[in-house]
Amino acid sequence: MAIIVQKFGGTSVADSDKIRRASRRAIRALEKGYQVVVVASARGKQTDQLIADALDLNPNPPKREMDQLLSTGEQQTVSLFAMALHAAGQDAISFTGGQIRMLTNSDYTKARIKSVDAERIHRELNKGRVVIVAGFQGIDENDNITTLGRGGSDTTAVALAAALKADECEIYTDVDGIYTADPRIYTNAGKMDKISYDEILELASLGAGVIYTRAVECGKNYDVRIHLRSSFEETEGTIITHEVPQMEGVVVSGATVQRDMAKIALVGVDNKPGNAAKVFAGLAKAKVVVNDIVQTEVSSEKANLSFTVHASDLTAAKNAVEQIRDEVHCENIFVRDDIAEISVVGVGMRTHYGVADKMFGALAKAEVNIDSITTSEIRISCIVDEKQAEKALVSVCEAFELDKPAEQRTKAS
Amino acid sequence: MAIIVQKFGGTSVADSDKIRRASRRAIRALEKGYQVVVVASARGKQTDQLIADALDLNPNPPKREMDQLLSTGEQQTVSLFAMALHAAGQDAISFTGGQIRMLTNSDYTKARIKSVDAERIHRELNKGRVVIVAGFQGIDENDNITTLGRGGSDTTAVALAAALKADECEIYTDVDGIYTADPRIYTNAGKMDKISYDEILELASLGAGVIYTRAVECGKNYDVRIHLRSSFEETEGTIITHEVPQMEGVVVSGATVQRDMAKIALVGVDNKPGNAAKVFAGLAKAKVVVNDIVQTEVSSEKANLSFTVHASDLTAAKNAVEQIRDEVHCENIFVRDDIAEISVVGVGMRTHYGVADKMFGALAKAEVNIDSITTSEIRISCIVDEKQAEKALVSVCEAFELDKPAEQRTKAS
Repeated sequence: MAIIVQKFGGTSVADSDKIRRASRRAIRALEKGYQVVVVASARGKQTDQLIADALDLNPNPPKREMDQLLSTGEQQTVSLFAMALHAAGQDAISFTGGQIRMLTNSDYTKARIKSVDAERIHRELNKGRVVIVAGFQGIDENDNITTLGRGGSDTTAVALAAALKADECEIYTDVDGIYTADPRIYTNAGKMDKISYDEILELASLGAGVIYTRAVECGKNYDVRIHLRSSFEETEGTIITHEVPQMEGVVVSGATVQRDMAKIALVGVDNKPGNAAKVFAGLAKAKVVVNDIVQTEVSSEKANLSFTVHASDLTAAKNAVEQIRDEVHCENIFVRDDIAEISVVGVGMRTHYGVADKMFGALAKAEVNIDSITTSEIRISCIVDEKQAEKALVSVCEAFELDKPAEQRTKAS
Repeated sequence: MAIIVQKFGGTSVADSDKIRRASRRAIRALEKGYQVVVVASARGKQTDQLIADALDLNPNPPKREMDQLLSTGEQQTVSLFAMALHAAGQDAISFTGGQIRMLTNSDYTKARIKSVDAERIHRELNKGRVVIVAGFQGIDENDNITTLGRGGSDTTAVALAAALKADECEIYTDVDGIYTADPRIYTNAGKMDKISYDEILELASLGAGVIYTRAVECGKNYDVRIHLRSSFEETEGTIITHEVPQMEGVVVSGATVQRDMAKIALVGVDNKPGNAAKVFAGLAKAKVVVNDIVQTEVSSEKANLSFTVHASDLTAAKNAVEQIRDEVHCENIFVRDDIAEISVVGVGMRTHYGVADKMFGALAKAEVNIDSITTSEIRISCIVDEKQAEKALVSVCEAFELDKPAEQRTKAS
């Protein structure tokens, strides 16, 4: 019998009415002939309240105890969800991560899933029950409760869909799908019907933020069809799936802008093996997450090295770089925190040329100066002045016809 | 190394300050050389809130899901308690009922403890940690979460003290011990230093209500020394222990009054084998808990049968009795809901006479009429008019000198 996994985030189960509404989704899927597994997050602001309670007692609470505490939020939701289904006359049973042996490593607050007991779930599904699983949580080998970190419930849902060989993993959220660009900036942006794992991974890391990277990676690895859709509307959302042939005809699937970033440039660093390693070792020690890195040789002796970081990491990054400065004989350090990154993403780039050309042309037309450029196989990103970010994005969207459905755009060469 | 179990109820851990205060109790016990196991209840009104959340979704929630939900309250407290100890520089680890394999039957909402994994706790204690265990909860053989019902955390604490062979099980509460009578009625009532399990069992079932019957029964069965004491004062409380020789010199340890009760009398029932059984089978079917039963023969053909119930069960009890009335040829049914029961309790009654005499004398002196009398080996109870209950209790307390410490009372004959 076909299985569907439905994941409801905190806003979708925030109160009794929303839990009832979500439970009706489960019943409709049953009526369509699916066996249904629900994954639920903690209700609304419950997790924030628990964190505040913890910090009130200990500004630096032990991580094991933090996980023990926070996991109660999801446990409450799943039992309430089961009660809502019973009230509607539908048999249902809730499980904590521990009860279905969602085994993780012991890396508290950001544990990784190792395995899950699909048998217990199949047994309950075969009794005609809806199975409701607490997202975000697992247990380690010693029955300690672990949590999976940000977006953990998405990961739980996709991992379960993989383990159960589900037809689809529906992620219910407060947006109705992935858009070709942020509609608040580019009002003509259209909703995508489909997007590939690789594209969403590039978009997610660039700040689209509708689904978490780890969940998509898990979906990609285990071939789980993910359906992002609205909790509050009946419309179809966006399917995240493996690259399909027709996707290749679409050169650019979407465009994004990322703000809150800063760039540090080390000018005139000694062009010697190991110098870049020293810089990034220093940054890692300072726990700075580095995004794009660009290095260019300016002579046989000297090179320029620049990288971008999240704005909140700028001070730590500057301090780390200052400490290594003399060791790598850096002549000058420039910092920019007034920048934004415009990116276009599309698996079609692998097989089509002219994308960079068209993007740079669009930026030129909007009179936007490009500070620097980085690319991956399916992405082109340009750093621009933050003040020009919005008009840059709109110009790029227009150039790639991101207002039209993919099949109506001008064919790529 | 000697072990002490400390149990903190909901009011003793209601907020951060109270959790900190309770955690200092644990640290003081460590300083005295004990290994410390803490058992904690849900914070203040958390359980009430969860019950309200559940009923909002389902007026008749499945019991398994109710236990899954309610067990989160204690889980939150124990992790917060561990954080408070860490903040004070004391290593600590919290456990759910499941994590220490507090194995129960599957009788959700009122499960019975079968066994507990003391080894895991000993291992953590031997690392110098305080072990904090969620009260009120366990798991069944299939890892379903169960709860132990009213007073469950007391039972958890006493069961752990038994399994760990603890020196003492301290029950912290908002009163500072057991009194010879309710001080709100008999202002001269004194705090008892010691009381036997049997006496407190009689007192608890009569409404003293400071510790739950099941916890005391468990203490009695496994010889656990229980120390009832105040969370908010440093004074010693009352020790509940096995009967010791000097207790026998004290004829009456305490006196109680129980209100909220009702009496149903069946007059002129056919005096035939099986008739009483029919009546009480009818009451059991109606889920009425029957307290004292009195049957008296009025002739060779007829008997009078009366019993007391909690006032809230009166309607159900009346209906049940009306249904069986004709079958047992009952001539008349009398109901009284304006009654109270005055009781005196003391293990000394086993070996001393004159107690009933002194009690009836005290009631006569106060001009209180006795409706009926029941006794156990260590208790005498009289049903009186509810309006006379307070003066009846005071008169009885004075007759048995319950204002004085036990050793200063007039010696029993």
